[in-house]
Amino acid sequence: MNTNRFDRVVDLMREENLAQILVTSPTSVFYLTGTWVSPGERMLALLVRTDGNVTLFANKLFALQGKVDVPMIEYDDTDDCVALVAGHLLPGDIGIDKNWPSHFTIRLMNARADIRPVLGSGPVDRARMCKDEDECARMRASSLLNDRVIARLMDELHEGMTELEACARYSAIARELGASGDSFPPLICFGPNCAEPHHDSDDTPLRKGDSVICDVGLVLDDYCSDMTRTLFYGQPTLEMEKVYALVKAANEAGRAAVRPGVPMKEFDRAARSVIEEAGYGEYFIHRTGHSIGLEVHEKPDNSAVDETIAQPGMTFSVEPGIYLPGRFGVRIEDLVLVTQDGVETLNHVSRELRVFE
Amino acid sequence: MNTNRFDRVVDLMREENLAQILVTSPTSVFYLTGTWVSPGERMLALLVRTDGNVTLFANKLFALQGKVDVPMIEYDDTDDCVALVAGHLLPGDIGIDKNWPSHFTIRLMNARADIRPVLGSGPVDRARMCKDEDECARMRASSLLNDRVIARLMDELHEGMTELEACARYSAIARELGASGDSFPPLICFGPNCAEPHHDSDDTPLRKGDSVICDVGLVLDDYCSDMTRTLFYGQPTLEMEKVYALVKAANEAGRAAVRPGVPMKEFDRAARSVIEEAGYGEYFIHRTGHSIGLEVHEKPDNSAVDETIAQPGMTFSVEPGIYLPGRFGVRIEDLVLVTQDGVETLNHVSRELRVFE
Repeated sequence: MNTNRFDRVVDLMREENLAQILVTSPTSVFYLTGTWVSPGERMLALLVRTDGNVTLFANKLFALQGKVDVPMIEYDDTDDCVALVAGHLLPGDIGIDKNWPSHFTIRLMNARADIRPVLGSGPVDRARMCKDEDECARMRASSLLNDRVIARLMDELHEGMTELEACARYSAIARELGASGDSFPPLICFGPNCAEPHHDSDDTPLRKGDSVICDVGLVLDDYCSDMTRTLFYGQPTLEMEKVYALVKAANEAGRAAVRPGVPMKEFDRAARSVIEEAGYGEYFIHRTGHSIGLEVHEKPDNSAVDETIAQPGMTFSVEPGIYLPGRFGVRIEDLVLVTQDGVETLNHVSRELRVFE
Repeated sequence: MNTNRFDRVVDLMREENLAQILVTSPTSVFYLTGTWVSPGERMLALLVRTDGNVTLFANKLFALQGKVDVPMIEYDDTDDCVALVAGHLLPGDIGIDKNWPSHFTIRLMNARADIRPVLGSGPVDRARMCKDEDECARMRASSLLNDRVIARLMDELHEGMTELEACARYSAIARELGASGDSFPPLICFGPNCAEPHHDSDDTPLRKGDSVICDVGLVLDDYCSDMTRTLFYGQPTLEMEKVYALVKAANEAGRAAVRPGVPMKEFDRAARSVIEEAGYGEYFIHRTGHSIGLEVHEKPDNSAVDETIAQPGMTFSVEPGIYLPGRFGVRIEDLVLVTQDGVETLNHVSRELRVFE
């Protein structure tokens, strides 16, 4: 049980006028209790009340006895687990975690006519947004390992290798060097496939003249990394060089703009304007980035419409790109950490134009 | 758009006094529309009303134009998609699909004070429970392919091969023979690991004297298969032979009991009593089976407490087992289809004791 994190969540609950919330995302339960549970279809719920009442409701099959130091109520498959939770609620608003399956919420409403479910993920999501010292150390370590893995991967690329073979190599090297897994399925694209930001890697083989996008991430000590490098197999055209230089400048501008007290959308603007001013704005077709931590996609976004004010401890991606349909694409992505007075970049692999033969 | 299935769902809605439901499980949307969508965090909702109003709400990014013949309202990431749905609801009860993330349900309640969310998965889940002719044909084909794959897998087992290597071979053979994927991660156990029904396959190597449990399934034409065979590497002990014969008799009794009009729990009883009467009841520590179709685990259960009356078109597993902790385990699983007057077994791999050297 992480007392600092609980205290922070309770502060944020008071700010949002929530006297009680049910934390049900396994990631958020891990964040607060230090224990991972994979509940499957069964119910896992951590009740947090501002009056200090904290109770974890868990199926006996999760076998948590002795593993968590939070007061726990265990149930088995023949119990009405929702009724157990209902019995511990105060009348009035109950904050519900955003992705809790609706049948639990509806059964809770049926059991207690005097409660009203409201959106309740805010306090924990906002606490998780600003990484504490221990989390920052893990985010750094995860990205440092990702740096090592992508460096080895780039050395192994060769003519005829397919996208999926390159993905399998990334995953294998990551595990060999100590990652517990990928933070998302590796996304490695060759040639025209690079122009589709959400292309699924397939059996396309690497050919001379291709751009190569490697968008990869791993999990180390529960924390996710995520980075992208673009390189060229064979001499790039002048346009490829120009586009690469633009994306590199946009990545640098996007990172350089980061500091606490500024809305996220300003960082998107800083990166995007470099590309827009060069006339390629219509080919940068996604947000500049996303937050990351225990999950690979967290809030807030690094996007044109996100008004969230950056705070120390926030970690997110800066990943501008230019995509020329049917031809090639370039994306350069780094993770950054907002510091007390500026920014720390968590990836250290060179962003200089790289050509291999 | 499958008119027969829609009509059946509307009949079941009337039976349950539901005038309107939101179908949001991608599998159920596929069942009714014939189109797979992976919505991720975005909203996918098929509104079905007994007055004939059917509307699919889908993000433009799903690119469904021209792919579905259901009236569709598309939204984009800047729209309030829940407000769009709210505008199409009648006052009163709205049936909500069981696993729809709660934030959608709560936002719907905030948008419409005159609606009341109630559990609404029943009509589609009950329609899906009884497979139609086309689905029965696909269930047969999926299990026939699984028969072929497991037969090849069993021929490849050899000393020193690890559980995970055997799992990888199952998956590879399944794809080679035309499966689109595994219906669940293959579960292959050697020796004492066989005594844990939910053991995760690991690096344990096959050794002389081991029991071997192969619990495997694949997806063909969207439909799942699932079967288990147990064999022995080296001459089994007399107790192993006795336990094997018992489980085989329980599997046969469990299948032979199946016919329409009988509660599911009777099939569990038929299988379980064979094992109990031989004094091994305490070592059969799970339900006898589960329904299966588009998903590998559907309702109802083949268990001691499931009162659902079997109907023609239902497909489920019969998978009794005996688990002797620290020593060995035996499970024999087949899928069955309830016919008009009895039962059809969908797996055809021999259940005779098999020993390999």
